[in-house]
Amino acid sequence: MDPSYFMKQAYREALNAFEADEVPIGAVVVCENRIIARGFNQTEMLIDTTAHAEILALTAAFIHLGSKILDECTLYVTIEPCVMCAGALKWARIGKLVYGADEPKSGFSKFSPSVLHPSTKIEKGLLKDECAALMQDFFRKKRV
Amino acid sequence: MDPSYFMKQAYREALNAFEADEVPIGAVVVCENRIIARGFNQTEMLIDTTAHAEILALTAAFIHLGSKILDECTLYVTIEPCVMCAGALKWARIGKLVYGADEPKSGFSKFSPSVLHPSTKIEKGLLKDECAALMQDFFRKKRV
Repeated sequence: MDPSYFMKQAYREALNAFEADEVPIGAVVVCENRIIARGFNQTEMLIDTTAHAEILALTAAFIHLGSKILDECTLYVTIEPCVMCAGALKWARIGKLVYGADEPKSGFSKFSPSVLHPSTKIEKGLLKDECAALMQDFFRKKRV
Repeated sequence: MDPSYFMKQAYREALNAFEADEVPIGAVVVCENRIIARGFNQTEMLIDTTAHAEILALTAAFIHLGSKILDECTLYVTIEPCVMCAGALKWARIGKLVYGADEPKSGFSKFSPSVLHPSTKIEKGLLKDECAALMQDFFRKKRV
């Protein structure tokens, strides 16, 4: 399984959000080359602004591993995490963060890349066009 | 009920954390001069780094009000929120944040006060000595 396979799985989660009329962001957590947790944005459905894809995927990963330290894991997410999610990834000491499209308005890197743990590797841009296009479709549909 | 009453209630939550051998931070959410939600740090117990006092109190407040916008509410927390929690407070558009002691290492203001929503009022220093002393006691006990 290569990184683009995992990002496609995160994109599939984003599609679940899109179909549920949620801001379409999806995430998966990978450990030893296997998906151990999934999540898609459910803030509307759960009436909970903390129910971002990353938080739900992290929480599921904690349960799966019985550990709150994910330094051997990679989180794939379709859109650059917000500061809340980046902070959560820091506490979990995620090994690697891979995200698709930038989020210039509320992405964590606007504030400070040091929101993440210093040992976390970062890769961005994987499937960025598809990930960004899904967001654009969603907000275009909302404006009609 | 005045602000120091509510901060004392947040402190009581922090004591619950202390007694459960968790980093002793507590929070309450107040709406129309009434406590509608409480939380104390439970990251060890729940094996979940996102289970900070603020996040648990926010989630309980969302459920109580059936709304994910808390612009009429005040969150009282014993210690300055981290970036994750400040980000969560931003998404919830909390009306006001009142915190006790500063957290120079991982407090949100180290990064950027603009992590919070621009309309959120901030007050700090309420019962700061008691709130800080409880943290110091906890970490002193851990070092022995």
